[in-house]
Amino acid sequence: MSRFQRVDAHVVPCQGPGDLSGVQALIEAGRLDARNIVAVMGKTEGNGCVNDHTRDFAATAWCHFLAPHLGCDAQQVHARVALVMSGGTEGVLSPHFTVFTREWVQAPPVHDGKRLVIGIAHTRDFAPEEMGRMAQVQATAEAVQAAMRDAGIAAAADVHFVQVKCPLLTSAKIDEALARGVEVATRDTYESMGYSRGASALGVGLALGEVDAQRLSDAAILRDASLNSARASVSAGIELEGNVVIVLGEAPGSASPLRIGHAVMQDAVDTAGVCELLQTHFGLDPRRDAAVIAARLVNLLAKAEASPDGRVRGARHTMLNDSDINATRHARAAVGAVLASVAGRTALYVSGGAEHQGPPGGGPVAALMRVA
Amino acid sequence: MSRFQRVDAHVVPCQGPGDLSGVQALIEAGRLDARNIVAVMGKTEGNGCVNDHTRDFAATAWCHFLAPHLGCDAQQVHARVALVMSGGTEGVLSPHFTVFTREWVQAPPVHDGKRLVIGIAHTRDFAPEEMGRMAQVQATAEAVQAAMRDAGIAAAADVHFVQVKCPLLTSAKIDEALARGVEVATRDTYESMGYSRGASALGVGLALGEVDAQRLSDAAILRDASLNSARASVSAGIELEGNVVIVLGEAPGSASPLRIGHAVMQDAVDTAGVCELLQTHFGLDPRRDAAVIAARLVNLLAKAEASPDGRVRGARHTMLNDSDINATRHARAAVGAVLASVAGRTALYVSGGAEHQGPPGGGPVAALMRVA
Amino acid sequence: MSRFQRVDAHVVPCQGPGDLSGVQALIEAGRLDARNIVAVMGKTEGNGCVNDHTRDFAATAWCHFLAPHLGCDAQQVHARVALVMSGGTEGVLSPHFTVFTREWVQAPPVHDGKRLVIGIAHTRDFAPEEMGRMAQVQATAEAVQAAMRDAGIAAAADVHFVQVKCPLLTSAKIDEALARGVEVATRDTYESMGYSRGASALGVGLALGEVDAQRLSDAAILRDASLNSARASVSAGIELEGNVVIVLGEAPGSASPLRIGHAVMQDAVDTAGVCELLQTHFGLDPRRDAAVIAARLVNLLAKAEASPDGRVRGARHTMLNDSDINATRHARAAVGAVLASVAGRTALYVSGGAEHQGPPGGGPVAALMRVA
Amino acid sequence: MSRFQRVDAHVVPCQGPGDLSGVQALIEAGRLDARNIVAVMGKTEGNGCVNDHTRDFAATAWCHFLAPHLGCDAQQVHARVALVMSGGTEGVLSPHFTVFTREWVQAPPVHDGKRLVIGIAHTRDFAPEEMGRMAQVQATAEAVQAAMRDAGIAAAADVHFVQVKCPLLTSAKIDEALARGVEVATRDTYESMGYSRGASALGVGLALGEVDAQRLSDAAILRDASLNSARASVSAGIELEGNVVIVLGEAPGSASPLRIGHAVMQDAVDTAGVCELLQTHFGLDPRRDAAVIAARLVNLLAKAEASPDGRVRGARHTMLNDSDINATRHARAAVGAVLASVAGRTALYVSGGAEHQGPPGGGPVAALMRVA
Repeated sequence: MSRFQRVDAHVVPCQGPGDLSGVQALIEAGRLDARNIVAVMGKTEGNGCVNDHTRDFAATAWCHFLAPHLGCDAQQVHARVALVMSGGTEGVLSPHFTVFTREWVQAPPVHDGKRLVIGIAHTRDFAPEEMGRMAQVQATAEAVQAAMRDAGIAAAADVHFVQVKCPLLTSAKIDEALARGVEVATRDTYESMGYSRGASALGVGLALGEVDAQRLSDAAILRDASLNSARASVSAGIELEGNVVIVLGEAPGSASPLRIGHAVMQDAVDTAGVCELLQTHFGLDPRRDAAVIAARLVNLLAKAEASPDGRVRGARHTMLNDSDINATRHARAAVGAVLASVAGRTALYVSGGAEHQGPPGGGPVAALMRVA
Repeated sequence: MSRFQRVDAHVVPCQGPGDLSGVQALIEAGRLDARNIVAVMGKTEGNGCVNDHTRDFAATAWCHFLAPHLGCDAQQVHARVALVMSGGTEGVLSPHFTVFTREWVQAPPVHDGKRLVIGIAHTRDFAPEEMGRMAQVQATAEAVQAAMRDAGIAAAADVHFVQVKCPLLTSAKIDEALARGVEVATRDTYESMGYSRGASALGVGLALGEVDAQRLSDAAILRDASLNSARASVSAGIELEGNVVIVLGEAPGSASPLRIGHAVMQDAVDTAGVCELLQTHFGLDPRRDAAVIAARLVNLLAKAEASPDGRVRGARHTMLNDSDINATRHARAAVGAVLASVAGRTALYVSGGAEHQGPPGGGPVAALMRVA
Repeated sequence: MSRFQRVDAHVVPCQGPGDLSGVQALIEAGRLDARNIVAVMGKTEGNGCVNDHTRDFAATAWCHFLAPHLGCDAQQVHARVALVMSGGTEGVLSPHFTVFTREWVQAPPVHDGKRLVIGIAHTRDFAPEEMGRMAQVQATAEAVQAAMRDAGIAAAADVHFVQVKCPLLTSAKIDEALARGVEVATRDTYESMGYSRGASALGVGLALGEVDAQRLSDAAILRDASLNSARASVSAGIELEGNVVIVLGEAPGSASPLRIGHAVMQDAVDTAGVCELLQTHFGLDPRRDAAVIAARLVNLLAKAEASPDGRVRGARHTMLNDSDINATRHARAAVGAVLASVAGRTALYVSGGAEHQGPPGGGPVAALMRVA
Repeated sequence: MSRFQRVDAHVVPCQGPGDLSGVQALIEAGRLDARNIVAVMGKTEGNGCVNDHTRDFAATAWCHFLAPHLGCDAQQVHARVALVMSGGTEGVLSPHFTVFTREWVQAPPVHDGKRLVIGIAHTRDFAPEEMGRMAQVQATAEAVQAAMRDAGIAAAADVHFVQVKCPLLTSAKIDEALARGVEVATRDTYESMGYSRGASALGVGLALGEVDAQRLSDAAILRDASLNSARASVSAGIELEGNVVIVLGEAPGSASPLRIGHAVMQDAVDTAGVCELLQTHFGLDPRRDAAVIAARLVNLLAKAEASPDGRVRGARHTMLNDSDINATRHARAAVGAVLASVAGRTALYVSGGAEHQGPPGGGPVAALMRVA
């Protein structure tokens, strides 16, 4: 009887949003069994904003790719595998997929201590007027707890990263709600991405005990920045109607060759936290052990945002007043390059829009490291 | 009789391209004498590409501001002060002006050793068909040597940064040349910025003995990347017709409170060179001495470019295939954030388009440090 | 004693936001007396959104240009001449300035009938929390009535175009308000342009009797599209803190060689209204009289916007979901080209963002025609 | 025995690049037999430039959609159906697919005169160094003649529109060629789209006898604008390596309910040609017969480009100097809106980049009209 969870992760580069030839090669080489894939976190090369169709393109490609392996229709794949595509590879960031597999093995792990586990859950679909409001917060919190159970994590302290994919408001959805006489959180499609991310992040913080349920309300969303989660990472996309939740953490008894830890960037150029994480959680020094890190680091998972007070280290930035390039694009370019300078590699999962995810202008960052 | 050159530099933030209230405040506080200003290197918040009018706006504002101080017309200021405006403050970069003053003092410097000196020169205006070709290379090399003489620098090894502002081809200039039956280096206005920068950088390299005159030709420009200068920084702008050259270096006998050194970034996320520069030239460690660096560092002057082979650390980047955001904008965002993570501040002079300026995908970086 | 108002208008092309050489040439040719200039409506080549510094650049250039003619400081010009710069010349639109002069002549007009008159007024500066709200509506309405008196127009029916320039919210202004514990109409800088335009347009409609004062409220702004003005044209810009109002209309006794009329475009591709205007107000047929129109038309003044319901002629458009190009830019490109196809020329004043200016997705358009 | 060709065309709106629900609905309603589809010309909502993945996304969606109908693999669909996706729906343009079907019927047509016919052909794949050069010109000319034979058109005068889809140079392809020591037509990926379109259009002109073979050479491509085709329409895309050619024309004996005619726009705002086409070829007046045109017009197929001399109707445009929005995007927005103002609808096939396609700054336009 299979009893021990064994989670692995492969980072696979791609030549475009629909290119899964690297995944196919891993399968043909016997290094990946498509039937074990439970989640894919992709960085695709679109603008990461409202009309970023590369996310949908990549997710569709994955559905067509996995369907024959899973013995289902392309559309049904979504219910079987958590496909989270985050758009935007500005600056040095390199498009790639992080493919998580999970299998159950009989042999107990050879190591002591905790190792990586993963869990997945979905919320119901949201009505336009629910997005960016308490309904989305509550539903997300419940889904996080369901995903923790799925992962076999008992204590919130063992959760190191919660990836959520959430919907946004399009013109069509907004019109539909208004036609029913119902007001939405915002009538601006780009702004709706922030509301949806913010509500979802507060849901994570609620589930993990990071934010006080008493202080949560519709009015607090995108307003009270003191409410935030150090482990939430939320991406909005046009291609879904409910939230998908992936919980990554550690548990004893996991047979995974990977560990995960997390830190918080205080602002977009803060490397102290991630350097300390590498030191304390993994015993590695970014300068001295650059070669080891390059060999063992599977990925950094991070959130980026333009500091909402218009300043970084006390000096004015221009990201929020730029009408040619959206602020999330600037922020990904900046944070992606800073993390690449520490990690020594550019296929990093840096996702934009960190509302209620870490402190204002900063964000959570998790490191996935191969330890065995 | 005044004999000792005393160069100082002020970094002044601005609220927009035309905002010189910070400069006015320094003057009113008695900290800056406008008559001593010899050069201004500005980072303005435009796109840094063909239609970036913030450069012209800032230069025009400086002309109107300085004219009464210098007792000349606004237009004549250009002949008296080297005004180099580099567009683009993507990511965390903060718009600012670095104002260089030079005066001649009688008292010999209290210190031993070399200190900052500065020199300025102009080339003649170029015909459209000369831009991006050997005519521009040669004229720039001569101007660099003139600026070295102006600075009082005898040896090329004492030059640490050469800032050049060069013109670009507009549709109008291209049409004018074609109407005369003359072909230009490129008919693409955006691409012409690269040609002009590349030819100018090779001129710097030629003057400093970094590139072999025998290997230079029209065909080598933007083609032979092995030819480059580790100290050239070139910005193209629509607002001038010839090159302006600023040489920054060190000389004994300078009474400046500043020193300057240079390093080379091997790629967009390479911090090793600049960390070593801080250590060896200034005796400061970026992690340990962060507070001292923040207090004493006047500016980092750096060039950024998207690696022309389409890769950073072996992984594909998307900067060169992006038709929404020009590659120079991506590169400034990335390099600016990486340097900010080392320097602890964001008002940095990071300029895009590093053709023949440092190795492909990397670029020169100089540090201006207050030492007395 | 001078008794008859004589208004003229010159359309002057420019090579960039700061290029007034065409104006200088008109002055030197004796065709324009700078002292008579009362208003300038410019189309500059920026993005027309938050960080469009070409507007400020052009206005500053005009201030420096006019100051010696008016015998005042550059900054004081703003109080003497209404400088309205509208950014964005997408598609075929050509950057230009429409320069309005007004002088008082003794000889009565040789013609019967009404001719062009102009009037100017300013509101006070607005606090951040007043923008996009009733305070701005009321103050604008009062300024429109003041400008009508200045123009010598008694009846609202003789007003054909009201140009308003209004401020927007920047990050700095928003932060300042929030620090005082005051909420603003929106925290999104780009969105604030729409609020400010909308409130100003309702002020025009209120002054002209086009909207019912009973139905106006903070909540109606950007919400109740049935409230709109067929003659309001509002541009937002970062370079001012209060509204500037220009009223263009007709009055008997005017000695102007120009007439003005207005129509409404029902959507972005609707040419019926402007064709009928040319026919009924000026007796010209766009197809048959193309040469006469090209010779006599001074300018079309129009507003453009992306249809807020996401459709044009029943089919989906993508302007509102585009995160690379703001919707106002799309709309100017479309409407500018449509009007150019009717007028036979491209130096047209087409301004983006038509909240409460004409019907949703459409907008007002006025024609300035030389008739004598 | 089936002897008479019957070509039909359906214009199907979509909600995104991968949305074929409208096509599915037509099939379910019995109005479309997927097995008869020979070509699809799509307008997708990407940027229409190098990194426009919406074209590939749409083409991939069509492959997956048609595969079960055609009894082949998704990838094999490309060899059976000409899938031409043109990116960019700027301004009022509405994303849609024009689906061409062809079947062979026994009954002779009930009408006299010529009706729509269609033919398809492919070239071989091109090496990077062949793109934008005579090799591409020659291969395209041969493919056009093959497609004319496939369509049953004997005389070039009966060809009214030739749609070509051609490849572009990516960084990877350029590097591959340079590594072999071979120079390419241009090293700029965006510029390569123009070269590939230009060479393909000259191939069409060569095949149709519009350009003189003696005057063609590598040097003439993108240089000699007097060489052009009034019927060529070429789109470049990252998703293919050879050219796909669709010939649309008229022939006696066709049983199609459609006719096709063509005109030339002399510049981006020229409606005279298309109005005359509607009048002479179809007997319809755009103003008087607006309702009939709206009911019967299947589509306008047109090319758009920014006038390469920097002027429209004598006045400067800013499209070619704009580093935020590529010139092809501006041009599509302008021409799309102008044609929509004539046609009364916005689901029009307006494609950008008209090198050697019609006169400089103008372009071919064809009208597909239901006549029976």
